[in-house]
Amino acid sequence: MKELKSLTRLEESFNKLPSIGKRTAERLAYSVLDMSEEDVEEFCDSLKSIKTQIHRCPICGAYTESDVCDICSNPSRDQHTLLVVSYPKDVISFENMESYNGLYHVLGGIISVQNGKSIDDLNIGGLIERLKTGTINEVIIATNPTIEGETTAIYLSKVLKDYVANITRLAYGLQMGATLDYTDSLTLAKAIEGRRKL
Amino acid sequence: MKELKSLTRLEESFNKLPSIGKRTAERLAYSVLDMSEEDVEEFCDSLKSIKTQIHRCPICGAYTESDVCDICSNPSRDQHTLLVVSYPKDVISFENMESYNGLYHVLGGIISVQNGKSIDDLNIGGLIERLKTGTINEVIIATNPTIEGETTAIYLSKVLKDYVANITRLAYGLQMGATLDYTDSLTLAKAIEGRRKL
Repeated sequence: MKELKSLTRLEESFNKLPSIGKRTAERLAYSVLDMSEEDVEEFCDSLKSIKTQIHRCPICGAYTESDVCDICSNPSRDQHTLLVVSYPKDVISFENMESYNGLYHVLGGIISVQNGKSIDDLNIGGLIERLKTGTINEVIIATNPTIEGETTAIYLSKVLKDYVANITRLAYGLQMGATLDYTDSLTLAKAIEGRRKL
Repeated sequence: MKELKSLTRLEESFNKLPSIGKRTAERLAYSVLDMSEEDVEEFCDSLKSIKTQIHRCPICGAYTESDVCDICSNPSRDQHTLLVVSYPKDVISFENMESYNGLYHVLGGIISVQNGKSIDDLNIGGLIERLKTGTINEVIIATNPTIEGETTAIYLSKVLKDYVANITRLAYGLQMGATLDYTDSLTLAKAIEGRRKL
């Protein structure tokens, strides 16, 4: 049976998206055939508008549709605490907690030898500039609890110690709702190490 | 944190796709932010082109980019056997077998009371017109082995018996590679019922 070129073309576009494998891409491409013209038009417009409307905040690197993000431009935020994260998406995760009131700094990645990401690719220079203003009292390093996230955290703590006195790292330990028998040994060890007095 | 409107808009577009839940839609929308302008352009073009390039074959209802699909327009196909399926995508499934050489007819759905699909919504009239030409010797009903697929099959067999002598239905039974302990009782019963002499 002759290949439907436009179907294959759309499957390839879907396949480029993370976690969308070949079979799902095929199913999604077929579903577009059943979509109305208006819905397809809307899909395209929303794809394009996300590239034109959203950019990175020049101060912290979070995603914003304004000139400066609403966290950096909010004077009621705690101006003395900086939460350093790897990705813009991480800012959303922390904001969803609705309990952190400080500022953020997005590195734009982690130090990763295999992915060719070095220190120069991360926005550490911008971070140091912010610390030089002297308003920041604490930097909380919130890179992922992975080997690369840890490496980045250790490197940062060395580089930043000349600019800020208090550098902290997120705690490791038990995940809320998890059970011990489903928790890996390394995390269990960290949970004991970081135990707190009741 | 203020909502990023264009992100939400794109999440909603992704969420409309089958099997794409809220969390996946969110992740996909974020990934588009990291896509190049060219890839976004290509995505849009492929979305639009699928609606303009692909249409239903006027004879059998399969998807095609030509005036008539390449199955209907292929004289070396067995012109006397018609495989009746529910959806255009089913044609692809059977063609991937590469062992069926007859023609197809796409009903465009199944009889489904809860989905408001009745006999009038299916392309049965077109099927009868094809049978009236007298060239078809066998109609193989290949609707899904579900309650609604079965209902459709039974209805079709009644309606079509005046137009064609030989009406058959796909066999039920064990799926290749499956094990008996993972096969449901109904299928096991069907497998016994349809047992063949060795």
